[in-house]
Amino acid sequence: MNNDCDLQQWDRIIIGIDPGTNIMGYGILGIKDKKPAMIAMGIIELNKFESHYLRLSRIFERVTGLIQQYLPDEMAIEAPFFGKNVQSMLKLGRAQGVAMAAALNRDVPIIEYEPRKIKMAITGNGAASKEQVQEMLRRILNIPQESLLPQLDATDALAAALCHFYESSRPQIEKGCRSWKEFIAKHPDKIKKP
Amino acid sequence: MNNDCDLQQWDRIIIGIDPGTNIMGYGILGIKDKKPAMIAMGIIELNKFESHYLRLSRIFERVTGLIQQYLPDEMAIEAPFFGKNVQSMLKLGRAQGVAMAAALNRDVPIIEYEPRKIKMAITGNGAASKEQVQEMLRRILNIPQESLLPQLDATDALAAALCHFYESSRPQIEKGCRSWKEFIAKHPDKIKKP
Repeated sequence: MNNDCDLQQWDRIIIGIDPGTNIMGYGILGIKDKKPAMIAMGIIELNKFESHYLRLSRIFERVTGLIQQYLPDEMAIEAPFFGKNVQSMLKLGRAQGVAMAAALNRDVPIIEYEPRKIKMAITGNGAASKEQVQEMLRRILNIPQESLLPQLDATDALAAALCHFYESSRPQIEKGCRSWKEFIAKHPDKIKKP
Repeated sequence: MNNDCDLQQWDRIIIGIDPGTNIMGYGILGIKDKKPAMIAMGIIELNKFESHYLRLSRIFERVTGLIQQYLPDEMAIEAPFFGKNVQSMLKLGRAQGVAMAAALNRDVPIIEYEPRKIKMAITGNGAASKEQVQEMLRRILNIPQESLLPQLDATDALAAALCHFYESSRPQIEKGCRSWKEFIAKHPDKIKKP
């Protein structure tokens, strides 16, 4: 799924990660002239490894490899804050920690988003299904049907990257400004005159 | 606390880690002629960093540094499997994951032990206090009183390393042998004749 394209063409590259202990999804988003496009996406299959350490080792190795290959400017990570039980959260935390370490090791800043926030940013509905997220992504990024994987972890990861692009492109309301009205009043130069 | 000694003298070096999100303890155990000794121990203070990422980054950096400095053969990690709530377990899992990634990155095998198991191995009591663990360690390893830190995370980490030394030095009962009697019957050559 890696279109062997020149990375130099992108103004900014975001790697999205959907960490899991069975399958980890990743998506590479390129931004050019403020427009996002998919560079690559895929999954890291972990269920074939019985040992927990082999899984963690594989995550570290593959995420490090992706960072070396695509040189992302930021990492967006899908991070649920609540889970079924303490044991599964410990395992998930380890998988997240190892993926984050791969980014920290290369000085790539990490930004995390709750699944609900990602779904909301992509589909406008915080309770959207993974299939709906995939379908919206396919339309927004013009992803060819044949590039879609049966595992939805890849589009989930790409959605995290796109959510981060949207979030970071939004004009920030400054601290101290409680509304757009106040912001505009403080910054008349930012208003485009007709 | 690093006695600038020649690492070559040790037959085997074990790094013990007690990961936490506020303070991370570490202990370096050297084995020579089947006898364990403390090489170094200390803590990584994390509470001074407000950001979760700075904390994780610091763990990765410092554990990587310790591995480069002491070249341990194995990492023993104190790993509780149960915790107060899912949020604290997610954070703990991340701290563990980052410390583990530092070891995985240098091909250092990781072995984890439950706190109860470590306490049992050092004091004979799975419910021993941290102070009791420290006191037993001080006696077993002849640690000078002035080397002990007020934070018990350092001795906890050293205890994990010593626990691993004990566990790995125990003759293993082979698979298929349900008792020592059976093991001895299968391996008469392993019995020392008077």
